[in-house]
Amino acid sequence: MKAIVYVALKPGVLDAQGKAIASALTDLGFVGVVGARQGKVIEIDLAETDVEAARARVHEMCDRLLVNTVIETYRVDIIA
Amino acid sequence: MKAIVYVALKPGVLDAQGKAIASALTDLGFVGVVGARQGKVIEIDLAETDVEAARARVHEMCDRLLVNTVIETYRVDIIA
Repeated sequence: MKAIVYVALKPGVLDAQGKAIASALTDLGFVGVVGARQGKVIEIDLAETDVEAARARVHEMCDRLLVNTVIETYRVDIIA
Repeated sequence: MKAIVYVALKPGVLDAQGKAIASALTDLGFVGVVGARQGKVIEIDLAETDVEAARARVHEMCDRLLVNTVIETYRVDIIA
């Protein structure tokens, strides 16, 4: 079973990478770039076979290691 | 209009972050973690209003700046 975790900065938290991307795109001549934000995706292969158990386990992984919940939010998709 | 770009390392390319995540999860006592891979997500706000034009523009952004196509693959979702 596979879990995909999408991690993004909370709204209001300064996203320096996102700002750098938006300004680099504009510098390269792309017009109409209003803004950009960068986050990360973590794909985890699990031996677990129960969807709900896997989801609970991955939420615990996020809270303990993968996500800084002070400044980041996350979403978990489980692919059976 | 919003574009979401998912960037991942190509299969076969060493993913040091992914390996570090998998081994840290195992060290924390999570059993059944078979592997992990880390990628990035870039969300771009565009002034463009045509979906196909936006998609073409974002593919060009990926090839020119956002993605190292030697070692990375990407997928673009356009959210109208």
